[in-house]
Amino acid sequence: MAERIGNSTVRLLSRPSVLAAASAVGKMEHEGPLASSFEIFCNDEFWGETTFEKAEVAMQKAALAAAIDGAGVTADAVEAVFAGDLLNQCTATSFAMRDLGLPLAGLYGACSTFALSLGLAALAVESGGFHCTMGSASSHFCTAERQYRQPLEYGGQRSQAAQRTATAAGAAVIGCSAQYRPHVDCFAIGRVRDLGIKDASNMGAAMAPAAAQTIEYFLRDTGTKPGDYGMILTGDLGSTGSELLLEVLRTEAGLDLSAVHADCGCLLFDAARQDVHSGGSGAGCSAAVVCSHILKRLQNGELPNVLFVGTGALLSPTTTLQGETVPGIAHAVLLTAG
Amino acid sequence: MAERIGNSTVRLLSRPSVLAAASAVGKMEHEGPLASSFEIFCNDEFWGETTFEKAEVAMQKAALAAAIDGAGVTADAVEAVFAGDLLNQCTATSFAMRDLGLPLAGLYGACSTFALSLGLAALAVESGGFHCTMGSASSHFCTAERQYRQPLEYGGQRSQAAQRTATAAGAAVIGCSAQYRPHVDCFAIGRVRDLGIKDASNMGAAMAPAAAQTIEYFLRDTGTKPGDYGMILTGDLGSTGSELLLEVLRTEAGLDLSAVHADCGCLLFDAARQDVHSGGSGAGCSAAVVCSHILKRLQNGELPNVLFVGTGALLSPTTTLQGETVPGIAHAVLLTAG
Repeated sequence: MAERIGNSTVRLLSRPSVLAAASAVGKMEHEGPLASSFEIFCNDEFWGETTFEKAEVAMQKAALAAAIDGAGVTADAVEAVFAGDLLNQCTATSFAMRDLGLPLAGLYGACSTFALSLGLAALAVESGGFHCTMGSASSHFCTAERQYRQPLEYGGQRSQAAQRTATAAGAAVIGCSAQYRPHVDCFAIGRVRDLGIKDASNMGAAMAPAAAQTIEYFLRDTGTKPGDYGMILTGDLGSTGSELLLEVLRTEAGLDLSAVHADCGCLLFDAARQDVHSGGSGAGCSAAVVCSHILKRLQNGELPNVLFVGTGALLSPTTTLQGETVPGIAHAVLLTAG
Repeated sequence: MAERIGNSTVRLLSRPSVLAAASAVGKMEHEGPLASSFEIFCNDEFWGETTFEKAEVAMQKAALAAAIDGAGVTADAVEAVFAGDLLNQCTATSFAMRDLGLPLAGLYGACSTFALSLGLAALAVESGGFHCTMGSASSHFCTAERQYRQPLEYGGQRSQAAQRTATAAGAAVIGCSAQYRPHVDCFAIGRVRDLGIKDASNMGAAMAPAAAQTIEYFLRDTGTKPGDYGMILTGDLGSTGSELLLEVLRTEAGLDLSAVHADCGCLLFDAARQDVHSGGSGAGCSAAVVCSHILKRLQNGELPNVLFVGTGALLSPTTTLQGETVPGIAHAVLLTAG
């Protein structure tokens, strides 16, 4: 049984575990600092398909299939996949599930999707009604650019605060087995927060206040401090949003995260060398970074625990055109090695 | 603790209940057969706002606020809202949550969203980690038409198999309290099924095979037959999809649902009088029908139980343009009065 602690946090007392996980990434992600962590990569942005959208389906399927294989189970044993992506109507996810024959609980949380999927997959196992679930998310630079911004051929200039949507997917298999780690020990569903940012190319600024709120509530609920964590990992604020997060937490809550904070968008790319401005973003960014680099560091003892805070900007091109500001959200998942 | 029964179904042993629910609908929905069931309606398709999208936000907020009020709780007491809509990036939902200050687990399941939201809201309560959750979904004829089909001004003709997207929202508050009913007794997350339908204006045909599969699995898992249910309610197959569902179940599984089957899309409108062809659809259709008409009939003893099977067509305009077929999904929730 799960236990509610404080106002916003749930502790999963049965300690669901990550049984296996896998990531699939594109060429540029594979040229970044985490290249050696990723199980699957493809230098062809079409992944052998005829459209970018079909490529994203193929990439998410590759990550899902590798994670299922790594867990030593069959697709039939997977009782629910909590998953989503950035495409309109989340079709990268639904077509991947169609092809693999998996049961789907479809999610939408923009770049926060993977934290939500991991938390809900663990909560389902915690409930006793599921023995084997999955969390998954994907994004693709080429599908996102043309859907959210301009056709690639337009060659638009990007602001310094802009992030680059990662071509990446991550998938994790969750079950209850003490021999596997890390455990998913806590989960917090975030509240939407909007401080009035109107610049859709500065999503780090729009998401930082939601991340700050979720982290502050989590530390208060659990009676812990930043130093109790091997890493407090946001995904994906980029460098602009990360600076703002540290500043907001320092001024609003008196919390100094500087010694333990990292951001999936900053980890994925070498911003200076790869010209990605504020860093990576996209639902697949944190999914791929967590499912490879972070889980490996938890498994090999380099990190005792990671408070993973997935952040999402809940805008659409339509809301921006209609003059709306950009609401942010952040969900927290505590991963513990021991 | 929840218990897994058979391959696909979860029984919620703590029997989470619907503490309160409310629906908000537009003019045409309020002129249909269920008019007297709906708590809130508005004859202005703009709901007093300046755009259709803001109208959908206002409508979903109205349903959420009325349900929260009906449960006698405050927004602060709501620990998670599982919710979604049909807009790109699900912005009707995220902006409604922003304005009401609610924690959001965003979902995307097309017209199956409300069944998924109700099931996950109950599963979260069942886990012990949540005491008060909500399920919610909305759709709006005017936002859906211009996003999925043509601008309203185009006045396109619709095929006889086409359904009309409902302007409707429904929200339910879920908690564990024996004095409230109905209970959410079982929940099944469906598998994506695609038999190759390519006609995006015949979504009933695309969804019927998924509904048939979910119903067949549910009856097999629970060892029950159609006659054990006061109603087996799909949402939303429309008349075309409903006919196909009955035929598929009869021929594939030897099951005769004709005595107990109803469909939210057929209940919402008087198809002949209101010229809606195959019936209603949209994430808000089943949400509003279940949250008003169906819950009232369960509460006043007219129905002992309802197997509610939310159905979704997981296409997008892009997948249709790229020549893809239409995958369907169906999630089941068993509502019991006693």
